[in-house]
Amino acid sequence: MKFCPNCGSPNTKRVPPGDAVPRDVCDACGSVHYQNPKLVVGCVPEWDGRILLCRRAIEPRYGYWTLPAGFMENGETPAQGAIRETHEESGARVDLGAPFSMISVPYVNQVHLFYRARLLDLEFKPGEETLETALFEEARVPWKDIAFRTVSLTLKHWLADRARGNFGFHAEDLK
Amino acid sequence: MKFCPNCGSPNTKRVPPGDAVPRDVCDACGSVHYQNPKLVVGCVPEWDGRILLCRRAIEPRYGYWTLPAGFMENGETPAQGAIRETHEESGARVDLGAPFSMISVPYVNQVHLFYRARLLDLEFKPGEETLETALFEEARVPWKDIAFRTVSLTLKHWLADRARGNFGFHAEDLK
Repeated sequence: MKFCPNCGSPNTKRVPPGDAVPRDVCDACGSVHYQNPKLVVGCVPEWDGRILLCRRAIEPRYGYWTLPAGFMENGETPAQGAIRETHEESGARVDLGAPFSMISVPYVNQVHLFYRARLLDLEFKPGEETLETALFEEARVPWKDIAFRTVSLTLKHWLADRARGNFGFHAEDLK
Repeated sequence: MKFCPNCGSPNTKRVPPGDAVPRDVCDACGSVHYQNPKLVVGCVPEWDGRILLCRRAIEPRYGYWTLPAGFMENGETPAQGAIRETHEESGARVDLGAPFSMISVPYVNQVHLFYRARLLDLEFKPGEETLETALFEEARVPWKDIAFRTVSLTLKHWLADRARGNFGFHAEDLK
């Protein structure tokens, strides 16, 4: 059972008038509580052809490598969120470029958005949610130890685009 | 005051351990209630060089013209959401193309994402949230009666891109 965040009464699960989907509805105060997908924003930080990855110090996927990324917060733009998450997880400061990949993960109600980025210096160090930060050249990317499919897909697109000398925007959906 | 959706107890607004932002925290059951931006997904439906717009039958911006769009739902991809919202608001069936614009609106915690789209037929008609649906050629777009800045920006990009014969991907932020 879920409760109404506005008045604390128990919710009912039903389709509100004019809607098509069952929602958490509060019969006491009349409010309808929608749940929507979340945006995860991050970047591909590059330095001299190498990519900065972070080894996760938290679940899910503790100990696996990821691009810096996290949930976008209210009040910020996706780019601001990507810069903030990058700094929180890796201590890195980046010059953010264009959006590079947008990969939806409908089974966990998320959309992952990664930007291109250039490291401004080498002053990166693990944040609280990170065990280790390191730069990887293409031949050393730890493919078997990448935390998430959205990250390995983004890395593959990035390396392929670099090889052909033209960075695009890649939208796809995981199943 | 807000209440915990999990147990119905009153929340406290405070910064959880390891976090940097005040959240609604339930001291009774320990859950932390995050609030994150929502994705609004829609499209630019085209038929023979004209664009389908919908005149809103709901607030905000009752009576103003918009591209078909709405909140992305859990369990769907952004493209599925754009197709669903287009059908709900205009009755139109579309062949969805590439993502075209992504405009963040941080002051209302939204990111608007529009796809290119081709109408499959002319069987459109207003849905419950729409007063009127119509195709507009460039010279007749009702610029002064467009409902939202994200829509007028998307239309301007679309018309400019068509004029130069090359559709890109446009990311920007409203202030």
